[in-house]
Amino acid sequence: MARVSTPLDVHPDRPLVLLSNDDGVDARGLAALAAALDGLGTVAVVAPAQEQSAVGHAITVRQPMRAHAWPFDGPSGPVWARAVTGTPADCVKLACQKLLPRRPDLVVSGINHGPNTAVNVIYSGTVSAATEAAILGLPSMAVSLCSWDPDADFEAAGRWVRRLAERVLDEGLPPGVLLNVNVPDRPLEAIAGVAVTRQARARWEEEFEERRDPMDRPYYWLGGRFVNLDEGHDTDLHAVQRGYVSVTPLHYDLTAYAALDRLAAWDWPPCGDAG
Amino acid sequence: MARVSTPLDVHPDRPLVLLSNDDGVDARGLAALAAALDGLGTVAVVAPAQEQSAVGHAITVRQPMRAHAWPFDGPSGPVWARAVTGTPADCVKLACQKLLPRRPDLVVSGINHGPNTAVNVIYSGTVSAATEAAILGLPSMAVSLCSWDPDADFEAAGRWVRRLAERVLDEGLPPGVLLNVNVPDRPLEAIAGVAVTRQARARWEEEFEERRDPMDRPYYWLGGRFVNLDEGHDTDLHAVQRGYVSVTPLHYDLTAYAALDRLAAWDWPPCGDAG
Repeated sequence: MARVSTPLDVHPDRPLVLLSNDDGVDARGLAALAAALDGLGTVAVVAPAQEQSAVGHAITVRQPMRAHAWPFDGPSGPVWARAVTGTPADCVKLACQKLLPRRPDLVVSGINHGPNTAVNVIYSGTVSAATEAAILGLPSMAVSLCSWDPDADFEAAGRWVRRLAERVLDEGLPPGVLLNVNVPDRPLEAIAGVAVTRQARARWEEEFEERRDPMDRPYYWLGGRFVNLDEGHDTDLHAVQRGYVSVTPLHYDLTAYAALDRLAAWDWPPCGDAG
Repeated sequence: MARVSTPLDVHPDRPLVLLSNDDGVDARGLAALAAALDGLGTVAVVAPAQEQSAVGHAITVRQPMRAHAWPFDGPSGPVWARAVTGTPADCVKLACQKLLPRRPDLVVSGINHGPNTAVNVIYSGTVSAATEAAILGLPSMAVSLCSWDPDADFEAAGRWVRRLAERVLDEGLPPGVLLNVNVPDRPLEAIAGVAVTRQARARWEEEFEERRDPMDRPYYWLGGRFVNLDEGHDTDLHAVQRGYVSVTPLHYDLTAYAALDRLAAWDWPPCGDAG
């Protein structure tokens, strides 16, 4: 399994851009992302060796990880790349704390093959890679193309992620904030522009399918139907439906601030023996 | 592997309380939780067959799941229990949408063996089980004991979770809000009371340990040091340090509302060929 390793040519005066994803190091969307960001700086890829969809913010704490050199071709030649036997969050941690010679200036996760809007943000490995970067204090964005079509065209998403990446490198982001970008499945000229949005309220209505194995024992497949519960015109879902690139600022402070007062009004006498 | 299955005796006029966790169906903290909530209503357990620490909000979408009847003893007799070959979020989905005869009135996840304060909320399977319940529209709470000691005493945590569970059943919670409860590692009489808190800002400073296998190929163990970045007196970390039971309301809307205006001020001309 010995492979020729591409050197990582890091200059102090050029941005170092780390790419990751959750579809795996060989995914079309990651190749499209590397192509779109070609020349923006030094591009490095650290991505899961295997598909990691729906892993959320899982990290690997009970077993060690490998980081294999991976042949990765960009439009200007070979790109330094590592395939990690872990989750998207693992990839960003390992890249930033061990594999890269210095901290990256920008972390971009994607381009995911399928949307990461509304409650899907919670389950998304694509978003979690960018969240991990934000936790580490790095500007970051997650990018998803709103299409499940195996032959989906990543061209327009690539063009928009390039513009957004340039902007973020120029202007930075507030501390602890990452961008969750969803690009509608349209040709470039049919995209209406950018909409800054909030995460729509939605849920999945699961319908587990029960099947029986040859020994007549049950097993269950997760299925379900996505239900939008949000009529707002300022949501990620609404923007994408209207043909806008949805840009949602996210953070990882899950405190429900609006509920603090209500809970503080509950009184709590000491928990004694009569408790 | 045939086991005698305990019947699930659900009454319309008694609360149905679903328990789950991430330490696995045979964890001490789950047994302590079931004991603490004994008699509060009908208690049902649906928990991971194997430990799932740090899985975050992962769900199982690429393979089916099993739900094995599991012998589970409570103080008043056998408790209906299933061991699921999935994550904490899977357990709650499968329980609520397939295994239970009706929707539970309360979902409690824990008692986790170790704290889930600050940024650990993001990685926690314990919290994700409660988050999943909130997504499904159910009152829920995650409970953690702030001790890594293998012989940790869950008694005080059990007493407090009982009180909190009674309160939540009585008063409900705002839609989409769950409680993240962290109990200090103290005897019951040394606990100062309840503090309603926000998630502290903190991060892990990872130090990956590189080792070499017998073929001299590298592999990496995740290690690291927890760093509190938050001097606030209203945080979960601060409350636990002072001996209070920390109760943090969480939600799953990750939108960074404070950043919306700044981003909306960026102008975005159309992404044409000159883009």
